[in-house]
Amino acid sequence: MENCRISTGLWFSEKYSEDAVFSIRAVRQHCAVQSKYQSIEVYESPEFGRFLIIDGIMMLTERDEFIYHEMITHVPMAVHPNVKNVLVIGGGDGGTLRELSRYKGIESIDIVEIDEEVIKVCKEFIPKTACGFNDPRVNVYIEDGIKFVAGCKDKYDLIIVDSTDPIGPPGEGLFTLEFYKNCHDALRADGIMVNQHGGPFYEVDIGQMKRSHERIYKVFPISLVYQANIPTYASGIWMFGFASKKYHPIRDMRKDWEGFEIKTDYYNPSLHIGAFCLPTYVERMLKECES
Amino acid sequence: MENCRISTGLWFSEKYSEDAVFSIRAVRQHCAVQSKYQSIEVYESPEFGRFLIIDGIMMLTERDEFIYHEMITHVPMAVHPNVKNVLVIGGGDGGTLRELSRYKGIESIDIVEIDEEVIKVCKEFIPKTACGFNDPRVNVYIEDGIKFVAGCKDKYDLIIVDSTDPIGPPGEGLFTLEFYKNCHDALRADGIMVNQHGGPFYEVDIGQMKRSHERIYKVFPISLVYQANIPTYASGIWMFGFASKKYHPIRDMRKDWEGFEIKTDYYNPSLHIGAFCLPTYVERMLKECES
Repeated sequence: MENCRISTGLWFSEKYSEDAVFSIRAVRQHCAVQSKYQSIEVYESPEFGRFLIIDGIMMLTERDEFIYHEMITHVPMAVHPNVKNVLVIGGGDGGTLRELSRYKGIESIDIVEIDEEVIKVCKEFIPKTACGFNDPRVNVYIEDGIKFVAGCKDKYDLIIVDSTDPIGPPGEGLFTLEFYKNCHDALRADGIMVNQHGGPFYEVDIGQMKRSHERIYKVFPISLVYQANIPTYASGIWMFGFASKKYHPIRDMRKDWEGFEIKTDYYNPSLHIGAFCLPTYVERMLKECES
Repeated sequence: MENCRISTGLWFSEKYSEDAVFSIRAVRQHCAVQSKYQSIEVYESPEFGRFLIIDGIMMLTERDEFIYHEMITHVPMAVHPNVKNVLVIGGGDGGTLRELSRYKGIESIDIVEIDEEVIKVCKEFIPKTACGFNDPRVNVYIEDGIKFVAGCKDKYDLIIVDSTDPIGPPGEGLFTLEFYKNCHDALRADGIMVNQHGGPFYEVDIGQMKRSHERIYKVFPISLVYQANIPTYASGIWMFGFASKKYHPIRDMRKDWEGFEIKTDYYNPSLHIGAFCLPTYVERMLKECES
């Protein structure tokens, strides 16, 4: 009888909308800090491993972060024929750096993260992603990415905007027309910008997706959107923007990507093509932003 | 101060695993019946419209059922060049019938649903899917689909196994080697069988996916798996089996599908191809079952 009163554990719950909630059971809180910008928490879950929460929103779990990080990195890397200099904006967990570090041809990886606490927390509690910081080609700038990129011209082959959602600072400014224009100008003449783009299902995510697409579409001659299934993100379908000055994500795909012999668990060249084949309802929403 | 005690509503929660729960807010229970086979409930949610729960598991919501029903129907219909006779096993909500009824060339649609109560409940409370029963080409058999199909030889061009999950009767028998063999024999020499196939992320769904694939792969010369993103299903990624005696789902795609002028919100011919481009971790799991 006493067992009836045993707790089922600590539950982290995220509201996808007023009517939809996803909850993950945690067995331990590793850390909870309030930085100058946001609250940062790390928990342990038997199913998902460690997971990172920023301002109450799920950023990553050890179980499925590979999907986000592979898709934000390998899609552009499998298109651009000669990436030497990369800029990552945000991405303080290090997962994008980890995927970039698999490419021997890259010469430098600049990362601009506004919140040093995110990096510190991830290095201490989520080394599986933060190992990306160990690559000697990585240069860390603790700065505002918006200002940083405004000061760069014709400098990068690839910019990855690995941001939190655009709800309040610091994420907000990473979704403006001006920011995208500055990214455009910071890229070389054949540069590519990839960003996390929101989701197509819940209202708040749709707003983000449409605003991003509308603005990026105005700035880049090639502006397409691709998808991945990320189980711990709202609705399980998440979008990325592929914005490019020269290369088309499908027509200009490298034929030799498999020659890099990079071990992936989500990305593969066939899926690369499939990721740009969007559901009709998503295509319609994007079309609405292209006028 | 009194407002602090206002309830946030009625929450339906489904456990995806011991550590993951998805909850939908309902504002009204339309119906809760216990049939001979299972419990059947219908609720109303502001975000998802009406939703159907069978034995505690989310079957469909009005908001996103179009994804499941379009993908289980239009993928085979866009491959087989001449579908005249169709068998639907399960599918008592009528959504698959609704999608099939868009094809003028189909002559007969037999549906075998073991539980008459499911049909009754859906006709009364979810007419948006149950409208599929209105097509005069539909013949309803309230019978055990396993026995029904065992008595058919060389009779159908397409069999759609639109079942609940294989947890206890009546779903269980729809995932056996014998059942798949009987479906094979009930199909004409160029027939196609499509089934819901489980998911690739949570353990219980993976088990279902692997067992289905292992068995279907033994029975049909062409056995491939395709995906769709269904926000209210576990992990948001769900799989379908495409089993075929003759036609390959990509190489033999009809060039004229768009000529049918069928309005879809998820399916389109480009997405058809993309749906067969699977994540590496899913491909690996399926490969393990093919030896």
